[in-house]
Amino acid sequence: MILETLKKPDDIKKLDDKQTNELCKELREELINTVSKTGGHLASNLGAVELTVALHKNFCLPKDKIIFDVGHQCYIHKMLTGRLDKMDTLRQKGGISGFPRPDESEYDAFIAGHASNSVSAAFGIAEAKREKKDNSYVVAVVGDGAISGGLIYEGLNNAGRSKDKLIVVLNDNKMSISKNVGAMSRYLAKVRSRSSYHRFKVGTEKVLGHIPFVGRKLVRYAVKFKKALKGMVFKSTIFEDLGFTYLGPIDGHDLKKLDYMIKLAKNEQKPVLLHINTVKGKGYSPAEKTPNIFHGIGAFDVETGETADSSPNFSAEFGKALIGFAENDRRICAITAAMRESTGLDDFSKQFKSRFYDVGIAEGHAVTFASGLAKGGMVPFFAVYSTFLQRSYDMIIHDAALQNLKVIIAIDRAGIVGADGETHQGVFDVSFLNAIPNVTIYSPATFAEMRFDMKKAIYNDEGVVAIRYPRGNEVKLDNEFTPADYYVLGNEKSDTVIVTYGREISEVLKANETLDVKIVHFNKIKPIDEKAVEQIRKAKKVFVFEEGMKSGGFAQAIASKIFEKGFSGKFSITAIEKFVAHSTVKEALTDLKLDSESIIKKVKGEA
Amino acid sequence: MILETLKKPDDIKKLDDKQTNELCKELREELINTVSKTGGHLASNLGAVELTVALHKNFCLPKDKIIFDVGHQCYIHKMLTGRLDKMDTLRQKGGISGFPRPDESEYDAFIAGHASNSVSAAFGIAEAKREKKDNSYVVAVVGDGAISGGLIYEGLNNAGRSKDKLIVVLNDNKMSISKNVGAMSRYLAKVRSRSSYHRFKVGTEKVLGHIPFVGRKLVRYAVKFKKALKGMVFKSTIFEDLGFTYLGPIDGHDLKKLDYMIKLAKNEQKPVLLHINTVKGKGYSPAEKTPNIFHGIGAFDVETGETADSSPNFSAEFGKALIGFAENDRRICAITAAMRESTGLDDFSKQFKSRFYDVGIAEGHAVTFASGLAKGGMVPFFAVYSTFLQRSYDMIIHDAALQNLKVIIAIDRAGIVGADGETHQGVFDVSFLNAIPNVTIYSPATFAEMRFDMKKAIYNDEGVVAIRYPRGNEVKLDNEFTPADYYVLGNEKSDTVIVTYGREISEVLKANETLDVKIVHFNKIKPIDEKAVEQIRKAKKVFVFEEGMKSGGFAQAIASKIFEKGFSGKFSITAIEKFVAHSTVKEALTDLKLDSESIIKKVKGEA
Repeated sequence: MILETLKKPDDIKKLDDKQTNELCKELREELINTVSKTGGHLASNLGAVELTVALHKNFCLPKDKIIFDVGHQCYIHKMLTGRLDKMDTLRQKGGISGFPRPDESEYDAFIAGHASNSVSAAFGIAEAKREKKDNSYVVAVVGDGAISGGLIYEGLNNAGRSKDKLIVVLNDNKMSISKNVGAMSRYLAKVRSRSSYHRFKVGTEKVLGHIPFVGRKLVRYAVKFKKALKGMVFKSTIFEDLGFTYLGPIDGHDLKKLDYMIKLAKNEQKPVLLHINTVKGKGYSPAEKTPNIFHGIGAFDVETGETADSSPNFSAEFGKALIGFAENDRRICAITAAMRESTGLDDFSKQFKSRFYDVGIAEGHAVTFASGLAKGGMVPFFAVYSTFLQRSYDMIIHDAALQNLKVIIAIDRAGIVGADGETHQGVFDVSFLNAIPNVTIYSPATFAEMRFDMKKAIYNDEGVVAIRYPRGNEVKLDNEFTPADYYVLGNEKSDTVIVTYGREISEVLKANETLDVKIVHFNKIKPIDEKAVEQIRKAKKVFVFEEGMKSGGFAQAIASKIFEKGFSGKFSITAIEKFVAHSTVKEALTDLKLDSESIIKKVKGEA
Repeated sequence: MILETLKKPDDIKKLDDKQTNELCKELREELINTVSKTGGHLASNLGAVELTVALHKNFCLPKDKIIFDVGHQCYIHKMLTGRLDKMDTLRQKGGISGFPRPDESEYDAFIAGHASNSVSAAFGIAEAKREKKDNSYVVAVVGDGAISGGLIYEGLNNAGRSKDKLIVVLNDNKMSISKNVGAMSRYLAKVRSRSSYHRFKVGTEKVLGHIPFVGRKLVRYAVKFKKALKGMVFKSTIFEDLGFTYLGPIDGHDLKKLDYMIKLAKNEQKPVLLHINTVKGKGYSPAEKTPNIFHGIGAFDVETGETADSSPNFSAEFGKALIGFAENDRRICAITAAMRESTGLDDFSKQFKSRFYDVGIAEGHAVTFASGLAKGGMVPFFAVYSTFLQRSYDMIIHDAALQNLKVIIAIDRAGIVGADGETHQGVFDVSFLNAIPNVTIYSPATFAEMRFDMKKAIYNDEGVVAIRYPRGNEVKLDNEFTPADYYVLGNEKSDTVIVTYGREISEVLKANETLDVKIVHFNKIKPIDEKAVEQIRKAKKVFVFEEGMKSGGFAQAIASKIFEKGFSGKFSITAIEKFVAHSTVKEALTDLKLDSESIIKKVKGEA
């Protein structure tokens, strides 16, 4: 096996063409095997095999930097930089992360869990190199999905006027998680279809192809010639308008072409955008056929490509419920930021085509657009992962809440998310929304509560309404209770009260089998019901357990409420105060002392 | 006076060409007079006179919607929509706002204090109209400064694939507050210089010019012809690549051309971008000469254009101090988001050209770019108004703090900002930064403290450091004290403690002349010094006064600290829990019960 013979990242540079092709095959097999066992992002990594190999052949890491955008296309890179033997620990507690992590390896240049940040980061690193007269390269590998984000535009707009040795590889597979959308995506399709470049390329390759070392002068000449030719045949691209040299589009699975174009790019004295076409899922037919399913998956059967049946989950239930409301209310519409399937909106999008919007990876736009829809009399739901809603913070304040517009935000993956890890934890939303006036927050623990909250959001509440729910299944309660804003559970006579909300009630209830104290459990967490506060402030001991950041969270709001009303008992908050690494949800809760056993210890005074 | 004869917004439609020209002259005079007394945004409004008049002649408000981006170019619009007689109350408590406010008038379509939101909002309104089969128009008036923001790109990318009656007017004056920057700005300059369109335009105008009503068919024909011609002569523009019909560029002070082009735009069956060239400050020579000074100003002398001398202020002192550090440390660089002068970086930008970055209105990029610089070994300062930092929230979490990178954020205009009002209050930053791990926050009240904090940020602290300071002058203290993280002041023997930070110490000290209690005043507000907590938790009564949002703010952090340590006295928080409208800073503080008299009442138990 060639892969195993590569001891140092630079060893790849010694391989001949045949060996390199063989290496790609091995990497693909290894990748499929690994992800079939660990789960993770498969399809995008299958599409990035040849690119990653070509980059490692042409750049010297860690001096040169490669930044992946989004980072989940970094698995091949990890295999080539000393982590092959750890791939079986992928996305597991203590194992390697599913995203680049500078903490994990000096070959990981920058963190990359949220899309579209690469060009800005790469430009920063490139400017630091310029200032230090360091002549090495910075490469940003950008999926075409990430191109829909405003941050990438800001990055291109700024980098485009520099003379830095910055190479942006646009890895265009026509997909983000779902099929890509937006005018830019249509534009890229148009650019992809231009054939003239290929004809030129084949021509020059005939001349240059067999020369083992392509000399600088020759390459420069080729670039010049190509530019002249292109100027005649093409209109310029958006990227050239923004100051980049545009190269491509080429087949991103053709190692020779990649090698040639990367060498061209290295010789430019200004930022380059290299446009390559790849196939998401390349080389594994189940993933090529349904790349969206193989985008981020759990374990699966390598032979058949069959994934485990998904159990009931909040996303799907949200989608179903929204269809129910939309059938009877023509004002209701739905927005997703490139997450149609994963936020449960696939059926909605088919049934209510004109009231469904996939805005691309553009969470800021999503909220401002929703504010416009609301201003026009519609009732928009924006379904989004908690972690990505951070991108919309100013828009929630300025465009939605300030005008008291009814924008309903369905916050998926709220709380601990598990294997995706620290870049993706949904633990900030309660804090950042709590500070904003005109915002109501629900945190349902069951599907029934979620439907109850959606109905209230549509027909009762004013202003911005956030309904936040965790990844996966609802909390199973022994005694079904009718959905309400809050509940008093457990031993009502106890003068010890546990306060909590959302999924954490599951751990609290388990703990209370031992503790037998009073529980005040919230569904509506902002504003806090004053009657519920009365239930708490009379206690002698109050323990709040919160699956979210401590600062600005629900627990501190409860503290304010009861202390300003004269509470003078024992008070304790258990919440999150650090970034939380990847692991299972259960492992993370234990680590954060939010699991049932830690709750028991805490309340008993042992912790 | 023609202006005074306009009773209803639609009356403008009856004016002939001569009267309309006269009206523009009157509007300009009125504008200069008003702003010379009230202060406000002058230069951009002078540049938008003809455009606003032409829009009001061609659209029927409030059915049609006009959204201004940024909103400070709305003064003429306000004068034409029933608020002429209230212009002397501009930006004053209870008076009209300096920005569009739907609360203030049905003719104000959408809030617009932060740049780049207009296309997203307009597209939302347009989609709501489509869904309701309402055939009216939505117009977004976008300054070229706003074009540098990622949100506008997200908006264009999404709107560009629709068939909505959406007209984006690009009001291109080559400036945001300062001169515009970035590749896009250079690109617009290139587009502006294209002359071919003008030749065509003059030709068709000869034919169409004297026909009183330009019929639909004729206009369509003209558009078609123009397109064909343009296709031959021009490369397409970025806006066409994004799905818009591009019209222009034309002289935005030529009423006839404006009228003609708006009619063309109205007849398109898809989104249009109309590019107009205007002169910032047009018609008032002091403002034409130095539009940056007349961007947002206080009262001034109309004859000479002389503005009041500016007293010492944090922005200028920050700029001076940064130069001092940068002279001795080559790692230090400075970033501004289109606010070179107003954040005090003008001199720095001249002295350290290669270490200064104006990134345009792109706060998200600024933080990610700074993270890249920090990763590359530089020490970046990002100087930004508190309110605009909201745009960087995710980037602070994901790109800077998560990697524990030393990104120093100089937060200007922290706290109440005064006349700019509710869109611009700097009251959220403490809350949203408090929730993020690896972030240190300083809130200096004096220049000396600010310099002390800057030095600690550069040479002592790790991770993200925020140094937040208010608009205007430092707090004057009777007894100069040596800068420290916190101070114990007042009557140290008192068992009543007032806790505060930043500028609010000024009101607290004034109140304490009457109260004579103990004061614990903080400069470093995150993390909170445990020794300072000890000073507080032993008191019987604790009052916290905070010029910032209550939820997640400093006061709640203090509450958590002391209550978890067993404090059982009286506890009270006075902080902000609503959006704060425009007024003077003093008026706002009084309204929020943060002024010295309210403090006295509160501590004495009368409030």
